[in-house]
Amino acid sequence: MKKLLMLAAILAMTQALPVSAQEVVPEAAPGGVTPEVAYIFNTLLFLIGAFLVMWMAAGFAMLEAGLVRSKNVTTQLFKNVGVFGIAGIMYWIVGYNLMYPGDWTIGGLIGELFVPKGIDPVAAGVTEDGYSAGSDFIFQLMFCATTASIVSGTVAERVRVMPFLLFTVVLTGLIYPIEASWQWGGGWLSEMGFSDFAGSTLVHATGGFAALAGAIVLGARHGKYRADGSVHAMPGSNLALATLGTFILWLGWFGFNGASQLAIGSVNDAADVSRVFVNTNMAASAGVVVAIICCHLRYGKIDLTMVLNGALAGLVSITAEPLYPSILGAVLIGGVGGAIAVFTVPLLDKFKIDDVVGAIPVHLIAGIWGTLIVPASNPEASYITQLIGIVAIGAFVFTASFIVWTVLKMTVGIRADEETEINGLDTKEMGMEAYPDFVQA
Amino acid sequence: MKKLLMLAAILAMTQALPVSAQEVVPEAAPGGVTPEVAYIFNTLLFLIGAFLVMWMAAGFAMLEAGLVRSKNVTTQLFKNVGVFGIAGIMYWIVGYNLMYPGDWTIGGLIGELFVPKGIDPVAAGVTEDGYSAGSDFIFQLMFCATTASIVSGTVAERVRVMPFLLFTVVLTGLIYPIEASWQWGGGWLSEMGFSDFAGSTLVHATGGFAALAGAIVLGARHGKYRADGSVHAMPGSNLALATLGTFILWLGWFGFNGASQLAIGSVNDAADVSRVFVNTNMAASAGVVVAIICCHLRYGKIDLTMVLNGALAGLVSITAEPLYPSILGAVLIGGVGGAIAVFTVPLLDKFKIDDVVGAIPVHLIAGIWGTLIVPASNPEASYITQLIGIVAIGAFVFTASFIVWTVLKMTVGIRADEETEINGLDTKEMGMEAYPDFVQA
Amino acid sequence: MKKLLMLAAILAMTQALPVSAQEVVPEAAPGGVTPEVAYIFNTLLFLIGAFLVMWMAAGFAMLEAGLVRSKNVTTQLFKNVGVFGIAGIMYWIVGYNLMYPGDWTIGGLIGELFVPKGIDPVAAGVTEDGYSAGSDFIFQLMFCATTASIVSGTVAERVRVMPFLLFTVVLTGLIYPIEASWQWGGGWLSEMGFSDFAGSTLVHATGGFAALAGAIVLGARHGKYRADGSVHAMPGSNLALATLGTFILWLGWFGFNGASQLAIGSVNDAADVSRVFVNTNMAASAGVVVAIICCHLRYGKIDLTMVLNGALAGLVSITAEPLYPSILGAVLIGGVGGAIAVFTVPLLDKFKIDDVVGAIPVHLIAGIWGTLIVPASNPEASYITQLIGIVAIGAFVFTASFIVWTVLKMTVGIRADEETEINGLDTKEMGMEAYPDFVQA
Repeated sequence: MKKLLMLAAILAMTQALPVSAQEVVPEAAPGGVTPEVAYIFNTLLFLIGAFLVMWMAAGFAMLEAGLVRSKNVTTQLFKNVGVFGIAGIMYWIVGYNLMYPGDWTIGGLIGELFVPKGIDPVAAGVTEDGYSAGSDFIFQLMFCATTASIVSGTVAERVRVMPFLLFTVVLTGLIYPIEASWQWGGGWLSEMGFSDFAGSTLVHATGGFAALAGAIVLGARHGKYRADGSVHAMPGSNLALATLGTFILWLGWFGFNGASQLAIGSVNDAADVSRVFVNTNMAASAGVVVAIICCHLRYGKIDLTMVLNGALAGLVSITAEPLYPSILGAVLIGGVGGAIAVFTVPLLDKFKIDDVVGAIPVHLIAGIWGTLIVPASNPEASYITQLIGIVAIGAFVFTASFIVWTVLKMTVGIRADEETEINGLDTKEMGMEAYPDFVQA
Repeated sequence: MKKLLMLAAILAMTQALPVSAQEVVPEAAPGGVTPEVAYIFNTLLFLIGAFLVMWMAAGFAMLEAGLVRSKNVTTQLFKNVGVFGIAGIMYWIVGYNLMYPGDWTIGGLIGELFVPKGIDPVAAGVTEDGYSAGSDFIFQLMFCATTASIVSGTVAERVRVMPFLLFTVVLTGLIYPIEASWQWGGGWLSEMGFSDFAGSTLVHATGGFAALAGAIVLGARHGKYRADGSVHAMPGSNLALATLGTFILWLGWFGFNGASQLAIGSVNDAADVSRVFVNTNMAASAGVVVAIICCHLRYGKIDLTMVLNGALAGLVSITAEPLYPSILGAVLIGGVGGAIAVFTVPLLDKFKIDDVVGAIPVHLIAGIWGTLIVPASNPEASYITQLIGIVAIGAFVFTASFIVWTVLKMTVGIRADEETEINGLDTKEMGMEAYPDFVQA
Repeated sequence: MKKLLMLAAILAMTQALPVSAQEVVPEAAPGGVTPEVAYIFNTLLFLIGAFLVMWMAAGFAMLEAGLVRSKNVTTQLFKNVGVFGIAGIMYWIVGYNLMYPGDWTIGGLIGELFVPKGIDPVAAGVTEDGYSAGSDFIFQLMFCATTASIVSGTVAERVRVMPFLLFTVVLTGLIYPIEASWQWGGGWLSEMGFSDFAGSTLVHATGGFAALAGAIVLGARHGKYRADGSVHAMPGSNLALATLGTFILWLGWFGFNGASQLAIGSVNDAADVSRVFVNTNMAASAGVVVAIICCHLRYGKIDLTMVLNGALAGLVSITAEPLYPSILGAVLIGGVGGAIAVFTVPLLDKFKIDDVVGAIPVHLIAGIWGTLIVPASNPEASYITQLIGIVAIGAFVFTASFIVWTVLKMTVGIRADEETEINGLDTKEMGMEAYPDFVQA
């Protein structure tokens, strides 16, 4: 209750802030920048964004490998590599075209040819978007892959590898593209005025909802929730990797949010991308600092994993609107994210939802927070529309994911047998230890 | 045999694909882009490419440190740092000038002055290349360093450190620059029409040939190939690092292939760089997915290291021609690379060639595959010329490397003594354990 | 003495080199580049620089986590994340405005609005700097964070977490911004003609002086310096992470030095940024090679951590002037840095200054070297002014840091109790092991 009040107070403060100039002037005419130069700049932004977001796949892999026990590390690593490979294939075959309907020229199994080599893009009239189709495709693909990466941490240490990859096929080929098309494909949410700059809901909460469904259908790890009501901690095996993963994600987020401006071919856009960089970083910093303070207040000790999740929750929170808030606004938004990372973990334990890496607080709850708070700074957004968007996407993604997980459970089975789980998935699922030379405790 | 047939079928399919528009229009006039702006864009592309390819040095270091046993990790890390340092020095002193003959202005021991500070490049007439000489030098240097990094994994766990560094001196100062000059220095291969966009053969197979020669001259690790004909597995000590290394390499490859377009100062070039990004990623994704399937079919279990090598082999395969293929073409080319990574490892064991990290399948065999398949999509390439290029480079690099390794063997000695090898190179070669606090199995 | 002579000889050589064209022509008129295009290029350079320098935070975290013993790894990781979070907040609230006085528009607790969304920057007249204010802010912030990261390694394994974070608050909010304002804020040092391109002294030596003060006030770790005068080695727990951290820093340095050119919107600037890239890399390569040779000569064995520090010292050395030197000049400057890394460690031990990761040789001593040698290549710099700058900054930073550490010592206490130190800080300070699954030696 007190927390809710605090949240309300912060929300009120954020709204009261001079978070943004209300007078919206028209975009500067591209004075001094020819369309060709703007095209190159915009394409370059997408390409830089693409490689930075690609790097987030490594971030998830390291974060999750660090937060599972050593007996499950190989499996977790494999899942992250597999997810990234599958996302590429599925998003190409169906995802991209589902997401941007009417534009079946890029993907499709027969594979055709965006801006083929040898065709002058100007002559072919394909430059009207102001960026190359290929740069857009690779950037969008990375968002699809990110969504899938979020799931693998939550369901770790008990999900079998093959059904997990099958779930990923559906998530990257169908679930993500469909819900993302509602907004970024020009669908009904975008027409309604829903606002989610780089995907607090479209990517992060979506990954979180899919993970939540998986956690429920799978059930908790053996021994996690004991008969006497106590919760058994299962500490991660390598906090250096978890920290590395967090820094990787932080770095990648500059591409995730920055390139979601979709253009840097004008002075205005360049200034906007810079704002996005600043606010993204400040929200993460605030997530760290607030998580430290909250840990200290609540537990009297600092839990490194909560601080890491605080940084990530700060980043997720600002992702829905990193452009309009002032720095102070970004700090408040990210700071609340940091508090969410600390305070909602016990909540999950209460419901016996076993989220191995804390992806649900970080990506789902902070993602909802970030999306809800958009209207505090963005004059074009409304709280009602934001809520509708979150509920619609949540209902669709959670339901679809729940069905897929359930079908997989009833057919191929999704859970490792108890013996495998206790011995570690690496032995039976992979036949390969991650750290064979180190004596295990 | 069946595999050969499958390869032939895939080759036929790839050829049959509408992989590229046949009508080649002239490059668009740089409408709207002044030469100065193009110069800045091109330079920026090289600089971004340079830092991304530099990062691959960390990728090789982590991959190899993860795939050797813990008792050899310090040595392996040191070799990777040392190689990268030496490559910089040698490529500057002789390599660059050997590779681009007639252009002794940049390197040379007396060290001279590319675009010196205070000289207006325009006035000095050095802008005609359309990019700064420094940006080209640093980008090319990173390719030289990559070639050397490939070798260190194969010869791991038994090569002595100092002779290995001496080999690197020759490889980066002479062998690589000479063979690379045949193509990229405007030599006879380029005149013949050989086609190797970013170096499937010039970099990767070259590293692989040098590694192969080293593996043969060195011999296998003690106990690897047993008297009864069995092969003794020596699993890597840290699969998290190996996975991290793979992701690093994947990221760096966007620079490796993308900046090998050598220009982003026109709409056409920007679209082409984008295609290269897409195809590079799709080939890697396909490498992952195909390696998973092949592992499953052949071994009934998934071997994480083979999946990692599948990704890398996909990347190596597309490196010779990431521009012309359609996405489907890139998927097929990379997918075959993934299969190569899985199926050629036993082949090496048959010949008792002990390649600790699988660099020969990944860089040599997939590099040859990628180079051979170029004409399937690039109308300007021919299979005969590709074959001639591979054979010529292979013969030169393998022979030269074999001679250097042999000379080193007969003079300073290249192999650690048996006791050192069994105890791990880290004790005697380095006097320093990589993980002194962890009890070793 | 012999070393001093050698240094003098190298200094003489460096001076004698044709390190730079003496004829300084005026900057090329931005022919063919409109102010708007230049603005976008410059902004992009800052943004790329910002994400590369941000990445250095991960580099410090991995380097330090690898060089402390496993019982202190969680604490070390936490300190690095905490420092980075705090730096963001403090630099925003006070630092930036202290550093660039008169420009209180960006920071300040009420948080206002640089280039607010919706305001046309051109119309608002805020484009005269030639880059967006936000891109400059985020880039400068990363330098402040880097300064703080340097300290955490030196004081590792015995400093308590909270007082360390409090020190960071003062360092990032006051000490760094004040001394940096003397040069980069247009203060008295810049007016005097002090020359420090990217911060050999302003960032690295500053971090080093703050670390030195901390090391002195804290005292050495228990058991480090024994009664019999011997020095007890306490080897790092994970050299793979230390190597990774070094490669990360090397990569980040391209942004650190490259974007310190502050512009890439003209042909001249693009050529200059390229020079900076080349010289930065060559200095690091030389640092590696020289450290290998020095290790060999002095110890007969190669110490990997010294080679890593050699690379870093090479990078620090070239940071004060990466633009004017020829490649040979950069190699000499970086090579001396590599020698410093090897030869000054015993010096610290002589004075019983316990620097856990070698940050004082690398950042302080090599930083001073790099700053002092600037006039050898830069005709506008003078040895006297360089010396004055180093002494002034050193006196201020060391004194201020010494006072802050002392006040913290006398109030909250800065040192963990002996039992905690022996058991490892992770148990009591954090309550969390970094590697709980591995049996510790």
